[in-house]
Amino acid sequence: MTQIVDLIQSVRLSEDGERLIILDQTLLPVKKVYNELQTPQEVWDAIVQLKVRGAPAIGIAAAYGVYLGAKHSDANTTAELLSAFLDSKTYLASSRPTAVNLFWALDRMEGRFKEIIGAGASIEEIIDALKDEAESIRLEDEHICEAIGEHALTLLEPGSGILTHCNAGTIATAKYGTALAPIYLGQQKGYQFKVYADETRPLLQGARLTAWELSEANIDVTLICDNMASIVMSEGKIQSVLVGCDRVAANGDTANKIGTSGVAILSAHYGIPFYVCAPLSTIDFETKNGKDIIIEERSAEEITSKWYTEPMAPKGVKTYNPAFDVTDHTLITAIITEKGIYKPSDLHQLNKQ
Amino acid sequence: MTQIVDLIQSVRLSEDGERLIILDQTLLPVKKVYNELQTPQEVWDAIVQLKVRGAPAIGIAAAYGVYLGAKHSDANTTAELLSAFLDSKTYLASSRPTAVNLFWALDRMEGRFKEIIGAGASIEEIIDALKDEAESIRLEDEHICEAIGEHALTLLEPGSGILTHCNAGTIATAKYGTALAPIYLGQQKGYQFKVYADETRPLLQGARLTAWELSEANIDVTLICDNMASIVMSEGKIQSVLVGCDRVAANGDTANKIGTSGVAILSAHYGIPFYVCAPLSTIDFETKNGKDIIIEERSAEEITSKWYTEPMAPKGVKTYNPAFDVTDHTLITAIITEKGIYKPSDLHQLNKQ
Repeated sequence: MTQIVDLIQSVRLSEDGERLIILDQTLLPVKKVYNELQTPQEVWDAIVQLKVRGAPAIGIAAAYGVYLGAKHSDANTTAELLSAFLDSKTYLASSRPTAVNLFWALDRMEGRFKEIIGAGASIEEIIDALKDEAESIRLEDEHICEAIGEHALTLLEPGSGILTHCNAGTIATAKYGTALAPIYLGQQKGYQFKVYADETRPLLQGARLTAWELSEANIDVTLICDNMASIVMSEGKIQSVLVGCDRVAANGDTANKIGTSGVAILSAHYGIPFYVCAPLSTIDFETKNGKDIIIEERSAEEITSKWYTEPMAPKGVKTYNPAFDVTDHTLITAIITEKGIYKPSDLHQLNKQ
Repeated sequence: MTQIVDLIQSVRLSEDGERLIILDQTLLPVKKVYNELQTPQEVWDAIVQLKVRGAPAIGIAAAYGVYLGAKHSDANTTAELLSAFLDSKTYLASSRPTAVNLFWALDRMEGRFKEIIGAGASIEEIIDALKDEAESIRLEDEHICEAIGEHALTLLEPGSGILTHCNAGTIATAKYGTALAPIYLGQQKGYQFKVYADETRPLLQGARLTAWELSEANIDVTLICDNMASIVMSEGKIQSVLVGCDRVAANGDTANKIGTSGVAILSAHYGIPFYVCAPLSTIDFETKNGKDIIIEERSAEEITSKWYTEPMAPKGVKTYNPAFDVTDHTLITAIITEKGIYKPSDLHQLNKQ
């Protein structure tokens, strides 16, 4: 059965390897437009403007970004190529501070570069190796998401109600998504989940993206405002909460889209399990706990006037617009990775692998 | 010192007693437009369209509405006038189901009508009495709000951070507001509160109304999205939460704008006191607990496309749009009335008064 996840690819390389093709997520659900990017600058812009978003998709795009930088470089020696590569790596790493996959993917590309340059490869061989590494990162992400989905599915009853926040769906990854992966895999098995999507202000990723991709896939999805999560939980409509994440600290504290910590507190209050779906690449053992995670702040305009016909707040009003918050590990029932399901207190077991 | 609360009057009668003048709250903060209403039908429309909103203001508007119906009636006898009055009362009571002040104010107007018709009053005398009764309801509301503000102020430290949800401000009442009353009274005493206003989706009363009236009054207000309440609490920015209410049940369960119950759960989690500001007219001893309160559901369009330049959700997506939720009495630190401050468990003491 062909699913929507086979038809939408949010981040992929063109056939000839010359361009990165991305789905412009800022235009959804009104228009489905793919952009073609050729330079690290264009990839950086796409990440900053949130055309590419979702921690795994950002990592994949950045990996292709440094490959394209090398591919279109005018370096005459491998040393010059490495210097240019490191510049574009530093540049792309500055695009978003919170998601750790970005740094992870860029470090992996650098590791591959240094491995092959050490083995005496030519410029062409290095460029081919970078392309293969970026492709591997994308393909592995697909397998990781599938594995997360299979593990998560063991925790969910057919027909049950699932609440999710922001978008951790197929368009946020190579395929399947993280938090939405079990929903797509469950659909193949006839599970008939009833999904509630928080709209996720201020950028409306839940309304524009999650509700869109699940609707396209004919999955039963109901859109609610963020402040309706409490009432749907109190009415018995939710049996589990599934969210993605941007970074998990060593103790299990989890940075994810603003509002996630509130949903976790509500889940604990109503006795509903709260699951974080996290590829190993989002787990940052270097960061001891959530206090050390930098929270990106964004512009007032996202709250006061973006999307709106007229400004919806008084002119010049003070705002506070953190893009993420940190959910305390004590509120997380389990962290679901491609290697299995872990309590936050058991996460350290993964550090040796 | 003239405060903004002296300059904005959201519901008042024209000098000649012929028309109800209301501030059209649907146009704020972009335009400040007053509408003049002459018939119960026009008042009903204004309530349904949320041009007049806030439980106390709705009650006041409805009281003027039945007065205007009598004033402009072509009844030839007092019996005909009573019959027409009861029709317009029933009609206005159908405008919004959740706020109890509406029914309370209409019942009070009917009580006054029956009292004076029983005393043998003429049509003119009845109309004058209805006008005086509606004026009394408005003036009493002003005094009630002031008393609530004075009581609430005893619970707040100068300079402290206060979070509020929706709009329980001067424009939701005759004057001062309920939850915002202590903020205006505190300003007169130089208290310098730092107010955080939840934007309150889907209708943005926090962004459009609370942030507007507090900004106009030069009070330090920061606008946040509803899903940011958790992070501002976790960062120590909030020392108290103050909200209004649409109806309080006998056990203290409180119906208020959607999202209030979530804010109360967050407050309990972070150990922050959560106060409900409630005129006695919103306390409904006939309703035993929150389960018996009817929750109004509103249209999908409020979530998916109202305010937006383009629809912000997939076409035809299913939504759920309850306008209110019920906060369990166990989450409420105190209910602040014009008679003083009560724990939910002590509320019954007010039933005999």
